[in-house]
Amino acid sequence: MENFSEWFHDILEKANITDSRYPIKGMAIWMPYGFQIRKYTLEVLKELMDQECDEVLFPMLIPEEELAKEGIHVKGFEDEVYWVTQGGQKELNEKLALRPTSETSMYPMYSLWIRSHIDLPIKYYQIVNTFRYETKHTRPLIRVREITTFKEAHTAHATKEECDEQVNTFVELYKDFFDYLGIPYLISKRPEWDKFPGADYTMAFDTIMPDGKTLQIGTVHNLGQTFAKTFDITFEDKDGEHKLVYQSCAGLSDRVIAAFIAVHGDEKGLKLPAIAAPDHITIIPILFKEGKEEVIAKCMELKELFEDAGLRVNIDDRDIRPGKKFFDWELKGTPLKLEIGPRDLKNNKTIAMRRDELEKIELDLDDSLLDKVLDLLEDYDDNLYETSWDFLEEHVKFTENIDEVKDLIESGNVVSFNWCGDEACGKAIEEETGYDILGIQEEITDSDAKCIHSGEPAKYVAIMAKTY
Amino acid sequence: MENFSEWFHDILEKANITDSRYPIKGMAIWMPYGFQIRKYTLEVLKELMDQECDEVLFPMLIPEEELAKEGIHVKGFEDEVYWVTQGGQKELNEKLALRPTSETSMYPMYSLWIRSHIDLPIKYYQIVNTFRYETKHTRPLIRVREITTFKEAHTAHATKEECDEQVNTFVELYKDFFDYLGIPYLISKRPEWDKFPGADYTMAFDTIMPDGKTLQIGTVHNLGQTFAKTFDITFEDKDGEHKLVYQSCAGLSDRVIAAFIAVHGDEKGLKLPAIAAPDHITIIPILFKEGKEEVIAKCMELKELFEDAGLRVNIDDRDIRPGKKFFDWELKGTPLKLEIGPRDLKNNKTIAMRRDELEKIELDLDDSLLDKVLDLLEDYDDNLYETSWDFLEEHVKFTENIDEVKDLIESGNVVSFNWCGDEACGKAIEEETGYDILGIQEEITDSDAKCIHSGEPAKYVAIMAKTY
Repeated sequence: MENFSEWFHDILEKANITDSRYPIKGMAIWMPYGFQIRKYTLEVLKELMDQECDEVLFPMLIPEEELAKEGIHVKGFEDEVYWVTQGGQKELNEKLALRPTSETSMYPMYSLWIRSHIDLPIKYYQIVNTFRYETKHTRPLIRVREITTFKEAHTAHATKEECDEQVNTFVELYKDFFDYLGIPYLISKRPEWDKFPGADYTMAFDTIMPDGKTLQIGTVHNLGQTFAKTFDITFEDKDGEHKLVYQSCAGLSDRVIAAFIAVHGDEKGLKLPAIAAPDHITIIPILFKEGKEEVIAKCMELKELFEDAGLRVNIDDRDIRPGKKFFDWELKGTPLKLEIGPRDLKNNKTIAMRRDELEKIELDLDDSLLDKVLDLLEDYDDNLYETSWDFLEEHVKFTENIDEVKDLIESGNVVSFNWCGDEACGKAIEEETGYDILGIQEEITDSDAKCIHSGEPAKYVAIMAKTY
Repeated sequence: MENFSEWFHDILEKANITDSRYPIKGMAIWMPYGFQIRKYTLEVLKELMDQECDEVLFPMLIPEEELAKEGIHVKGFEDEVYWVTQGGQKELNEKLALRPTSETSMYPMYSLWIRSHIDLPIKYYQIVNTFRYETKHTRPLIRVREITTFKEAHTAHATKEECDEQVNTFVELYKDFFDYLGIPYLISKRPEWDKFPGADYTMAFDTIMPDGKTLQIGTVHNLGQTFAKTFDITFEDKDGEHKLVYQSCAGLSDRVIAAFIAVHGDEKGLKLPAIAAPDHITIIPILFKEGKEEVIAKCMELKELFEDAGLRVNIDDRDIRPGKKFFDWELKGTPLKLEIGPRDLKNNKTIAMRRDELEKIELDLDDSLLDKVLDLLEDYDDNLYETSWDFLEEHVKFTENIDEVKDLIESGNVVSFNWCGDEACGKAIEEETGYDILGIQEEITDSDAKCIHSGEPAKYVAIMAKTY
């Protein structure tokens, strides 16, 4: 696509995903088709999360006193918090924040709930709306003022080791989640100056959008004991000693949906990963006066066959020409279309078309049909996955020359380079190039490598990009 | 139960449903077990709603200008709206309301979306959090400041007939929903002075709580063209004429969960309707050193058997004494418990216990087991349904003597009586008795009936109660 930004804006409205004409900037409506995509995406997420955490739901408002308790944390959010100051026609005694994230809502309760080592670990998650008073340019699903879908997990542990382990577990869980959706990712440890306010360190997932800019799609934070100290979250250990817990948290949002829309889409519209598609298969009957009932009956029969196998199936029997139906479902990204007309029926055939390849595939209407359809869906998903990972890998360029960074990034790449790890040096690199260091991808053990800027022995491979 | 109010407060905390210690009055946390109950309740609701409407999601904030547009409506809410006035450290140009309900958030968009008769009907619903600055005494799930689970459906139609029909459809749908949960209800048309602000009329569902007070658990409003006029929602009809749409809306909330907790519960705890229970069956292994592995293996085998039949099953293998486990699951209201020890295994038996009857039922561990368990669950649900309907019917007392009203209500009943339908007379009845007229249940065709207060010919049977 030539202009990704325009394409993205258009596709959201045309495919009935969101409507941004709501009279508050940065707040959009999830339309019916988009809501279904969101629903199936959340089903995948919940199934993964439920293996690890219990789902809960905390209030949306946070008293100013709680939000303000953790100084580093509040500093990170004070410019973006919406405040409720009035109830009815009265001024409230205490301002209430619309949650920007829920550490300060949840941890005072953790302090009440955790008494002894037998109460640990606590692992809770919730999927909620959160709010950020964004002053930057907003963009649906990507930079919004109401994040309608914010999944946040918050854990507390008796030992540092368990907490570190939890961080790794969340990273693996996020990998699985993105893999299901065919979203490729770069994992990095955010630089000190870009970690979550209050965290010991932050592990982040970024994908590369079609225009070469990266989009942060998930983060996992090791909070150490910072919040435990602030909110007095202690437990009595086996030996009777009172100790602070160790905590982790992990978040992702609507951006995941933006990511799979962006990385898989093309000029004709969406290509939805099957697991998130409202319909896996759209059946399009080709109707003439003659043989109409037989065609409809066959469509119904196939729908039942596929649904019994767990597939989501839609018959598009609108009274419009088939060409328009094809156009619509290519726009909406249904993975597989099946076309059946009276002639097909006579020949005992149906014409299948995968959304990625758009080639006609003749299938026999016999006992082999279900397996062939399942194969086509699997191949389709595999192809989305491989194509998008290929794109990502082609767009990460290693360089040893800092002068090349600008050109590489401006031509749509993420740049990786060797770095000494020194904070002042890192900030100098950002200043010199004008881009952000996303983080470090790996440690370097090869002692010959030199930092791209300082020339000192490199400790890390870092990545740098233009970011959303 | 002797003191319902105390019982209700205690059970929410003890059964891990909600925690009310959150530092804002009227806002509570959904704890893991409660969250599961909420989840399964919503699954039932969504399955019903999806047959009728498309699910969408609107922003939580409403600009003051939109909220204020419909005068009657805003008048009904102005004392209970929370206002956001600050973003970051800045005063906002326009105040934003936390939605108390979403008419004024949705209808400006309906005005954009509806152009022609082919765009109609529109039938959308959403499940969201809404806010009311309650000044009355708050009570978890019943009277709260954040309604965490508000289901609201909003429809627009080309004709009055279609809209009236929609109201009836929603009433039928709500009946089905409450029937699944075994919640008995009184349906009435709210009096003019108690209808939804902006509605032509309001149909309401109330249940009777154990203390005899009624709880409103669902409402369906026929909005006529009031909001269509205010928000300019018009369409071009087949004949080229521009016309206003007719609208309906229908809402229910967390109160549904409060209702089934209250109407089914007893001194030992919850009795959850099977459809909303996190586990249909809890298997309790009775473990001794000898035969331990065999018992566990049999429990696993039964779990698989039941799960394959679509049941939710939990094995309580905690290392505590069985008596404590029985106590816990009676408190948490699991519909059916199965107990298996080494002796049972040798005799090829298991002991079942329904939560409602608490009697030991010996079942053979053979091919008949699944059917017997399914029968027990069905009987259990039927019994909850019948017992709760019996309670409701026993507690609606008809009287022709206004002097009896107070005693009847104070001894835990709802009173029904003949009424002339005159508003001044209705308000006089409320004033004289000190209770609320819930609404009219039916029209009277028998011309001999006289109004309980005015003595004029009665037009309606009305009901009156002490309300939550």
